[in-house]
Amino acid sequence: MTKEKQISKAVIKRLPRYRRYLHELQKKGVEKISSKDLSKLIGYTASQIRQDLNNFGGFGQQGYGYSVDYLYEEIGNILGLNRKYKMVIVGYGRIGQAMASYISKNELNFHIVGIFDVRQSIQNVEFQDAVVLTCGSLAGFVEKEKVDIAVICVPTEKAQLVADTVVGAGVKGIWNFTAEDLDLPENVAVENVHMSDSLHALAYYMQDME
Amino acid sequence: MTKEKQISKAVIKRLPRYRRYLHELQKKGVEKISSKDLSKLIGYTASQIRQDLNNFGGFGQQGYGYSVDYLYEEIGNILGLNRKYKMVIVGYGRIGQAMASYISKNELNFHIVGIFDVRQSIQNVEFQDAVVLTCGSLAGFVEKEKVDIAVICVPTEKAQLVADTVVGAGVKGIWNFTAEDLDLPENVAVENVHMSDSLHALAYYMQDME
Repeated sequence: MTKEKQISKAVIKRLPRYRRYLHELQKKGVEKISSKDLSKLIGYTASQIRQDLNNFGGFGQQGYGYSVDYLYEEIGNILGLNRKYKMVIVGYGRIGQAMASYISKNELNFHIVGIFDVRQSIQNVEFQDAVVLTCGSLAGFVEKEKVDIAVICVPTEKAQLVADTVVGAGVKGIWNFTAEDLDLPENVAVENVHMSDSLHALAYYMQDME
Repeated sequence: MTKEKQISKAVIKRLPRYRRYLHELQKKGVEKISSKDLSKLIGYTASQIRQDLNNFGGFGQQGYGYSVDYLYEEIGNILGLNRKYKMVIVGYGRIGQAMASYISKNELNFHIVGIFDVRQSIQNVEFQDAVVLTCGSLAGFVEKEKVDIAVICVPTEKAQLVADTVVGAGVKGIWNFTAEDLDLPENVAVENVHMSDSLHALAYYMQDME
């Protein structure tokens, strides 16, 4: 699929959610769904759903609904989930371990090929096809293995250094679990999971409830 | 501080980020900062910054800048970080352990008072002031301890059940690390950290870079 226009970030953020619900429908054997029923399920309005999916040429037929399998596949294609990604995890503390476990269990398109940590005590610890290596070998490894994505789980003050290292070695995507807002070249994508921003927003919403 | 109007979700999402940068400035001993310098640091435009902070009555003076300490404190107050929150962690697998460790190291206003897991093998394992307890005692514990927030780290298919249990026992905020979009009463706040949505958005952005 060729992307003819820039899709807004808000729409992109909703697509994985559509895909999750479509996968649930697949598991239940549902083959077709109307935007109205999809609306009830996902919680967006039917009009929002039609508008979102129209961004990609629209996959539905008036009065007929969407084919669940087709829509699931197409959204996957749009998201770039029709290919495999090689990943390294940098920082193998509790968050790094949790992410390694999460990815290997849930994300079939993402394959952890290497894990890096500064601590001597955990060198050569095995995780599936990967072993924990010293950070000194990170750049060479990323270059040689043509790694696509680095998952950064190091202490915040080391995050930029790690990002510079992996980007210099060819990584095109960073999944950042540190509190640092990374300074990156324009051709490198980043997704931040800033735990404290999320928790503090929760605290705010809770006050609003009182 | 009385909130006289509803602040948009987008602004709320930016406040923790302001606060993070202000804390960095405090650590460096910076006392005043202009919206222009704050803009260079944070990456929002100076006009965006002035507009955001005006939502709360504005803390700056024309030609003088913002007091870093005052702004840090006030944003904390707005976010509800001028009080303590009692938390339970439900599901003490890798994500639950990572979150327990993260919170205890980084979030002074949030205190983990209990940890719950179905696995018999880890009952009574200690984490600071808490021990791992069986899920059967969750509702009673939450009620007795007047727990504010539940951090849900169980398998996705158990998430709604756990949410119903803690909400029934009086929890007012849920930090949700499962893929489930929880069905909650209107007076309960939720923040979702949907890992797969974040990773799939990253995959999309990476295509865009090519």
